[in-house]
Amino acid sequence: MRVGVGVLGGGTVGGTLARKLLAERENIAAKSGVELELVKVAVRDLDRERPFPAEYVTDDLQSVVDDPDVQLVVELMGGIEPAGDLILRALAAGKPVVTANKALIAERGPEIFEAATAAGVSILFEAAVGGGIPLIRPLSESLAGERLNRLLGIVNGTTNYILSAMDADGAPYADVLAEAQRLGYAEADPTADVGGGDAAAKATILAGLAFGVWVGADAVHTEGIDGIDTLDIEFARDLGYCVKLLAVAESVNGGVSVRVHPTLVPLDHPLANVRGAHNAVFVEGPDIGDLLFMGPGAGGGPTATAVLGDVIDAARDLLAGTRVAPRIKLGEGSVVPFGEISSKWYIRLEVADAPGVLAQIAGVFGEHGVSIMSVWQDGRGDDATLLLVTHDAPEAAHQAAVRALDGLDTVKQVAAAIRVISPEP
Amino acid sequence: MRVGVGVLGGGTVGGTLARKLLAERENIAAKSGVELELVKVAVRDLDRERPFPAEYVTDDLQSVVDDPDVQLVVELMGGIEPAGDLILRALAAGKPVVTANKALIAERGPEIFEAATAAGVSILFEAAVGGGIPLIRPLSESLAGERLNRLLGIVNGTTNYILSAMDADGAPYADVLAEAQRLGYAEADPTADVGGGDAAAKATILAGLAFGVWVGADAVHTEGIDGIDTLDIEFARDLGYCVKLLAVAESVNGGVSVRVHPTLVPLDHPLANVRGAHNAVFVEGPDIGDLLFMGPGAGGGPTATAVLGDVIDAARDLLAGTRVAPRIKLGEGSVVPFGEISSKWYIRLEVADAPGVLAQIAGVFGEHGVSIMSVWQDGRGDDATLLLVTHDAPEAAHQAAVRALDGLDTVKQVAAAIRVISPEP
Repeated sequence: MRVGVGVLGGGTVGGTLARKLLAERENIAAKSGVELELVKVAVRDLDRERPFPAEYVTDDLQSVVDDPDVQLVVELMGGIEPAGDLILRALAAGKPVVTANKALIAERGPEIFEAATAAGVSILFEAAVGGGIPLIRPLSESLAGERLNRLLGIVNGTTNYILSAMDADGAPYADVLAEAQRLGYAEADPTADVGGGDAAAKATILAGLAFGVWVGADAVHTEGIDGIDTLDIEFARDLGYCVKLLAVAESVNGGVSVRVHPTLVPLDHPLANVRGAHNAVFVEGPDIGDLLFMGPGAGGGPTATAVLGDVIDAARDLLAGTRVAPRIKLGEGSVVPFGEISSKWYIRLEVADAPGVLAQIAGVFGEHGVSIMSVWQDGRGDDATLLLVTHDAPEAAHQAAVRALDGLDTVKQVAAAIRVISPEP
Repeated sequence: MRVGVGVLGGGTVGGTLARKLLAERENIAAKSGVELELVKVAVRDLDRERPFPAEYVTDDLQSVVDDPDVQLVVELMGGIEPAGDLILRALAAGKPVVTANKALIAERGPEIFEAATAAGVSILFEAAVGGGIPLIRPLSESLAGERLNRLLGIVNGTTNYILSAMDADGAPYADVLAEAQRLGYAEADPTADVGGGDAAAKATILAGLAFGVWVGADAVHTEGIDGIDTLDIEFARDLGYCVKLLAVAESVNGGVSVRVHPTLVPLDHPLANVRGAHNAVFVEGPDIGDLLFMGPGAGGGPTATAVLGDVIDAARDLLAGTRVAPRIKLGEGSVVPFGEISSKWYIRLEVADAPGVLAQIAGVFGEHGVSIMSVWQDGRGDDATLLLVTHDAPEAAHQAAVRALDGLDTVKQVAAAIRVISPEP
């Protein structure tokens, strides 16, 4: 049976989706029993060359949503507005919506889910996290019977590309970022990627899926990779770790903690092998054990394939008349303040190479209830580098210890302080 | 709404499932809106201790299927009969079925899918391949809009454990197998695992999902790991490879090839990092790029979690009254004969260390249209070891060349011949 599809946005993903809808129509019908018919694609620039015939193009967004031939709306324009209002308009008209817009879901998710529930139609967003990697369907359906302990994600390809290149080439952050921008892996304004904001939006969505708790991107403790020194990537490697920007969502102290920050990951952990622009999500549960999902985190082909999987799914539900619940079911649950989270830290101190310095530093850690797991000292003459890895201790204690170290005369600089992945809870 | 669940089989997986159904009832209801009620568990031995109350136990299999309180049947007893007939009986009565029985699906899959379609109820089998790893749902739904090129799977945990241990410890196959049996990673009769039969059953299912073509386990070219020498694992490592038992399903020459055999995998390939009893499936598609799914391939907890995901899904469909299509949609497509498949080979020859031997061997390869990519020779005195890696050439040509080499006076032994993973098609 036929389902008319309207697409908002004709860029890389939208263009690939339109091409696939036209080229794979018969194949999809044979495999799924659903005949998808591309009706219109709304674009900003009517004159640009597209990978699909010009007859499908319009620049009137609302006309696509309102078109009676369009029974299903795909939103690939990005941004919060007018995307959000167009989605709500489509849902209100009983049209299922597929979107890849993580920023919008992170900002207006609960409102959009509620509108979809009220209208009894699907809202699907597989491509919003992890590009082409099937994540949202497995988390919401395959693992529906599991209470997860923790989810660790490399969910931003740009930062993983930069960190991987810093590791492989030993080049400084600024040089690698410039090269990534030249190659198109990083945008001219890289803030959303390197500052961790993009990862925080995805962390919000993953936490909602895994724990049924909505944190909101603004409430996610977020640190980016712009402060990472190549020297620390090299020291970390000597200690048996690599550095990754991780999105972490975990069940802790009866609540949920969601955060994004650079993290030292042991070299034998599956996430350590995720290199370049790839994305991966690592899931830990009491019964399921450990699962890894890895694949391309962005790009027109992977993202459009994930979107198309959702379109087929939503069209099937529409034809079956199934009333569908949103993938994220929000329940009760509290967000654990970041200061209460416990972790290990890697700390690099530039110190005066004088007798008694180590004792003084160890004393500061002790005063703050932080115990030291290992110490490594290098240097001759006046200066020395001290690398420390601590045992698990609360965030607040670690931060207070670092501040106190910074105030010591013998400590010239707290040159780096990076959290270390904790063993499974 | 309530759905009564009957379970056939109360072993490790069935016991864990029953425990989870009882313990997680409220949690599952909150997350999915489905109230799952455990009705009965059919077991062989009524007296054995189980992780759930004895009041649920019966030894009458058929009574569970026929019980009017049972609206959904879970088959976890294994084996072909009576499991197959009980499943057909449940489907005929309009009861959806969830099974983890890969041998049965591989042997009677199309018949069972047809019965489910005729009855308009679900047949789900996520746990039949890859234990706890969500594979079947992502392949059939998330990737519904993609024509895959190839699927490479490490789908047998026992053989991956053995190969990993041979690699790590340098111990011979027989010793590692004995240790695996002692630890419970291998069965007393390990034939189905080490001979590749278990992997072939799973390859049949994966090929059906990925390409809509039903091969049948008997028609899968299958080689096990029982002929693998630790020496070749060591040589392979020197050449930049590890040895894995791979299930391969690929689109080739307009048809589909499905096979199971030991394979040299480059050390930088994501599958090379899958160690111990873990399973993984690597998927390649023109738009999606490369995806890796990794996790525990067996065990009560992971398998029961995957089964429970299916139970929730099937119960939802039952309550919604949705007519559901089986996950595998069989279409037209031909199976490519194994002799037509092209691959690279790694070959180890024990040869006389005499002038002209290499020229003679190279001549034999040339006569059969097989060209050599690299050669490495070691040895002094009368004997030498020759390692060769060939370029892609048809299976039949390789086999003829190996037979001809075996007939040479200067070749004392074709000590090993193992296929090497080909680059992406």
